[in-house]
Amino acid sequence: MKDLLLIGIGSGDPRQITYEAVEALGQASVFFVLDKGSDKDELVQLRKAILQRYRPEGGYRLVQVADPVREAHADGYLGAVQHWHRQRAVLYAQLINQEVGAGEVGAFLLWGEPTLYDSTLRILDLVRERGVALRLRVIPGISSVQALAARHQVPLNRIGEPLTVLPGRCLATQGRIDNVVVMLDGQCAFAQLDDPALMIYWGAYLGTEDEVLIAGPLPAVKAQILEVRERERARKGWIMDTYLLRRAL
Amino acid sequence: MKDLLLIGIGSGDPRQITYEAVEALGQASVFFVLDKGSDKDELVQLRKAILQRYRPEGGYRLVQVADPVREAHADGYLGAVQHWHRQRAVLYAQLINQEVGAGEVGAFLLWGEPTLYDSTLRILDLVRERGVALRLRVIPGISSVQALAARHQVPLNRIGEPLTVLPGRCLATQGRIDNVVVMLDGQCAFAQLDDPALMIYWGAYLGTEDEVLIAGPLPAVKAQILEVRERERARKGWIMDTYLLRRAL
Ligand SMILES: C[S@@+](CC[C@H](N)C(=O)[O-])C[C@H]1O[C@@H](n2cnc3c(N)ncnc32)[C@H](O)[C@@H]1O
Ligand SMILES: C[S@@+](CC[C@H](N)C(=O)[O-])C[C@H]1O[C@@H](n2cnc3c(N)ncnc32)[C@H](O)[C@@H]1O
Repeated sequence: MKDLLLIGIGSGDPRQITYEAVEALGQASVFFVLDKGSDKDELVQLRKAILQRYRPEGGYRLVQVADPVREAHADGYLGAVQHWHRQRAVLYAQLINQEVGAGEVGAFLLWGEPTLYDSTLRILDLVRERGVALRLRVIPGISSVQALAARHQVPLNRIGEPLTVLPGRCLATQGRIDNVVVMLDGQCAFAQLDDPALMIYWGAYLGTEDEVLIAGPLPAVKAQILEVRERERARKGWIMDTYLLRRAL
Repeated sequence: MKDLLLIGIGSGDPRQITYEAVEALGQASVFFVLDKGSDKDELVQLRKAILQRYRPEGGYRLVQVADPVREAHADGYLGAVQHWHRQRAVLYAQLINQEVGAGEVGAFLLWGEPTLYDSTLRILDLVRERGVALRLRVIPGISSVQALAARHQVPLNRIGEPLTVLPGRCLATQGRIDNVVVMLDGQCAFAQLDDPALMIYWGAYLGTEDEVLIAGPLPAVKAQILEVRERERARKGWIMDTYLLRRAL
């Protein structure tokens, strides 16, 4: 039986981590840091900074491994992601078996909230299917959705109203947009919308020193967001952004 | 200009508070604790326990006031809530003017995530409209949605899938339910659903010592949830529960 912690570390501000998470950090003997490739190196640095800050005395191992690259797949997006998850499951099973010794605890430092658009839980299910017995603990973290709402000082829902959170690729097929947070939108799906009744609250690099916030009626600020987004992406080499779209009542 | 902090304190487990929130706790001179009435007294106690834990040296004032009672309203639910918010705005404006002196910082300790189904930000907008100048800071907290997902060890979304969060009163009119978290459901709206393809992940008093978790196919566990919910509600005098409904693929 392998003990594993999935620890939410917040989405940029190292102070946006919970006491529970820091307590858990202190219990792990080995941390797995899966690397998305050099353009997002900074995210690896932020994880290391969290370890240095909250576990300054050291005494743990860091296992840093390059994630398999996601390839196009005959079965389209879903097929590609599923294939990628299976590849990662093979890798994770191997790492866990090798690195988490008897009586030891392994940990993943997960960006934002570990259950929101993060595949680790799903991959660990596949690891179990490969015959590795796991005992998990999931520790919530502040998601970028919450960081966005806090920085814009805007409630995520109005009175009695639903909130939908979705990936950029679902926005076009969403139907009527009343109150929607969009994540994982490399294609700027908002740029395709022309509804004058929509407000947008946009944020990039939330919680970090590069944070940018723009809000306003979508038609009025769309061009500005596209411009700032492209400028920042070019400057830093990568971008993480999210936004709330809300229909005026 | 009055300085106010809206501090998310998590949804039951006092360790599920962030370092940022505790830092903010340390900056406030006065805390406003709005009381929902005696049946939810325990929530006031939990707030006081957080202050005792994270600000043991004291040196702050606690202003505890009974919230106005929400009355039925000719304009239905929305009208009733809006009327109630206006009443609360009058009260909050008065309290803030009286209690937050020059150079002082006031704070609200808000349950879970301050921007999720919490009316404080909205009421403070109305306070501003009444002519009170406010400088706000919003500090995210772990919501009950996150506590639910963490305890059930279930991702809030499957690959590329939207997540909708809504209040119980919206469930019946939601249309197709694929992946929905329900909050504020005093009426057990899930009991009206008979779809054999739905899974439910239910949790009450999440993060507290009274926590209860039940999961399974909705038709198979519905009766059990209703029974446990009623038993616990009767035993404690109040209940807070939330659940995820998910269509099997
Ligand atoms: C793979 S998902 C992980 C989400 C994460 N689990 C969370 O709770 O925020 C990555 C997406 O989250 C959003 N995101 C994460 N961190 C962000 C930040 N600091 N600022 C803006 N968006 C962020 C972006 O939409 C990005 O495409
Ligand atoms: C007024 S809303 C406040 C939500 C809060 N801001 C949050 O982020 O969780 C109250 C609802 O939150 C949910 N809730 C809050 N705390 C909970 C807990 N500890 N366990 C289960 N549900 C909870 C219940 O659905 C309850 O009706």
